Amino acid sequence: PDNKDNGDGDGEGEMKRSGKEIYMVSDGTGWTVEHSVNAALGQFEHCLVDRNCSVNTHLFSGIDDVERLIEIIKQAAKEDAMLLYTLADHSMAESAKKACKIWGVPSTDILSPITEAIANHLGVSPSGLPRGAPGRDFPLSEQYFRRIEAIEFTIKQDDGALPQNLHRADIVLTGVSRTGKTPLSIYLSQMGYKVANVPIVVGVQLPKALFEIEQEKVFGLTINPLVLLTIRRARAKSLGFTSEMMSKYSEMEHVREELDFAGRIFAQNPVWPVIEVTGKAIEETAAVVLRLYHDRKQKFSMPRISKRY
Amino acid sequence: PDNKDNGDGDGEGEMKRSGKEIYMVSDGTGWTVEHSVNAALGQFEHCLVDRNCSVNTHLFSGIDDVERLIEIIKQAAKEDAMLLYTLADHSMAESAKKACKIWGVPSTDILSPITEAIANHLGVSPSGLPRGAPGRDFPLSEQYFRRIEAIEFTIKQDDGALPQNLHRADIVLTGVSRTGKTPLSIYLSQMGYKVANVPIVVGVQLPKALFEIEQEKVFGLTINPLVLLTIRRARAKSLGFTSEMMSKYSEMEHVREELDFAGRIFAQNPVWPVIEVTGKAIEETAAVVLRLYHDRKQKFSMPRISKRY
Ligand SMILES: Nc1ncnc2c1ncn2[C@@H]1O[C@H](COP(=O)(O)O)[C@@H](O)[C@H]1O
Ligand SMILES: Nc1ncnc2c1ncn2[C@@H]1O[C@H](COP(=O)(O)O)[C@@H](O)[C@H]1O
Ligand SMILES: [Mg+2]
Ligand SMILES: [Mg+2]
Repeated sequence: PDNKDNGDGDGEGEMKRSGKEIYMVSDGTGWTVEHSVNAALGQFEHCLVDRNCSVNTHLFSGIDDVERLIEIIKQAAKEDAMLLYTLADHSMAESAKKACKIWGVPSTDILSPITEAIANHLGVSPSGLPRGAPGRDFPLSEQYFRRIEAIEFTIKQDDGALPQNLHRADIVLTGVSRTGKTPLSIYLSQMGYKVANVPIVVGVQLPKALFEIEQEKVFGLTINPLVLLTIRRARAKSLGFTSEMMSKYSEMEHVREELDFAGRIFAQNPVWPVIEVTGKAIEETAAVVLRLYHDRKQKFSMPRISKRY
Repeated sequence: PDNKDNGDGDGEGEMKRSGKEIYMVSDGTGWTVEHSVNAALGQFEHCLVDRNCSVNTHLFSGIDDVERLIEIIKQAAKEDAMLLYTLADHSMAESAKKACKIWGVPSTDILSPITEAIANHLGVSPSGLPRGAPGRDFPLSEQYFRRIEAIEFTIKQDDGALPQNLHRADIVLTGVSRTGKTPLSIYLSQMGYKVANVPIVVGVQLPKALFEIEQEKVFGLTINPLVLLTIRRARAKSLGFTSEMMSKYSEMEHVREELDFAGRIFAQNPVWPVIEVTGKAIEETAAVVLRLYHDRKQKFSMPRISKRY
């Protein structure tokens, strides 16, 4: 489920009819159903990876009238697709269910079971209003501004820039080149955390500020040397490095030396947790960082990330 | 549901017991259950916003053994919490269900209904292996590299930087300051799109490249002047602007003049879709951009975003 078409559109033409079709419909952005289907498809990697099965997903967002809903369901029937949907309006969700039954489209409502369970727990009825429905007001909340500020802060602090701002970060990541500091920083910033990242480079002194700020917010990243080598070779290729630059950056000896250098720095700073990123997707490393981050703040018996709504 | 605690931990101590508790458990990152609960809580905004009800969510990630699972469920029972979970291992999911029944914790399985529906559709059994389970290999796929490349490209192209690279972008966003170009660019880059953004500033000429690249990938952003004024005042305050700088940046007359200027540029470039961002969260604007982007590529009767797995 990592092999997405991500925007360059290659093959979008000929992808039809070469696998099973999954339709996804939302009255909102569609990101919830997409995220859920993506996770569920992880359960079929054994057959997706070796191409014994193959799946095409089709996301229809902003579907807030029954005419378009029915049109999509008819199309799904034609393509032998299944349908998963999130529709806040109860009668829309009912229409989807009925129409799918009529047209023989297997369907699953992703939103209603969750909404109903929460409604029972709270003793409050759901509004039935989709996000973005007319009359609903998107609040320019403090949190909205905070998230944007976090993203902008994080961009500016990328790659060791502006060490004088390290004290303003919520989280500081450090590690050698290609341990994923930048994508991880960006991922966390979207969740509202101000992140700075500081590269470890042999022969380059780390900024003094790194050792002067609150040490509990610093996290080291480490990676298996062989995997790092693979990543760096791909990187060097894509940057069009000459073979001379290649050898400094992406030869095994140099990679080992750099990781040893980083390892010594980590050993000298035992307060920094060192996170192994080998074999982890960005969001998986993010989960580990945040678990530790919140655990250090809260000292519950079991690490948890708590939010107030 | 926008008023999250996002990492600064304020009030994490006293949040207990002041509302209903929702426990979320995953054997993976927990982002799927969190995303789903977040969407569902949107259905209760009417009571969350005015504080007639209030909710605390608690996310437990990486829960892959039954002992910790049971410990969490016991704790949930003590706090009168409900539990929502994603557990790939069938026996773990069954244990959660049973334990919740025994301890009187209302519970909902988020993953199984989706996995089972897909299993029926594909005629393939789910693996039952959580992400990150030992033996499962995270592939350094082409798409992994592409996503990271997109993020790094997008950071470098922020705020009109390096116009000579505009032709390499998948999507180019343009609009006046504080229309959300940066957070939107970053959001899209995480999905694998290379995004550049170009600010429109009165009296500053737009880079020639903007008019020379493929025009179908350029998107204009616009916003209601009053809302823009609010955003800019907040921004100016947070940047510590002097009142003189304030007036150039965040006074109504100037804001109108700038939006008019942008409007004329958009009128001269009718191929660029102009997207109204007023009242939209970043992910909502992203959904609109991507719907248009894919529609332009595919020319289906109904816009869809298709991916191959
Ligand atoms: N803030 C919100 N207010 C109301 N409904 C929401 C909100 N966020 C998401 N939803 C609903 O949750 C479902 C999933 O949203 P989305 O991820 O945008 O497709 C849709 O049915 C939305 O209408
Ligand atoms: N790539 C994957 N392979 C297998 N299972 C996955 C994958 N991604 C997500 N899942 C499962 O989907 C559920 C939600 O994942 P998460 O969002 O990481 O909590 C968990 O039960 C995960 O184990
Ligand atoms: Mg970097
Ligand atoms: Mg910007």
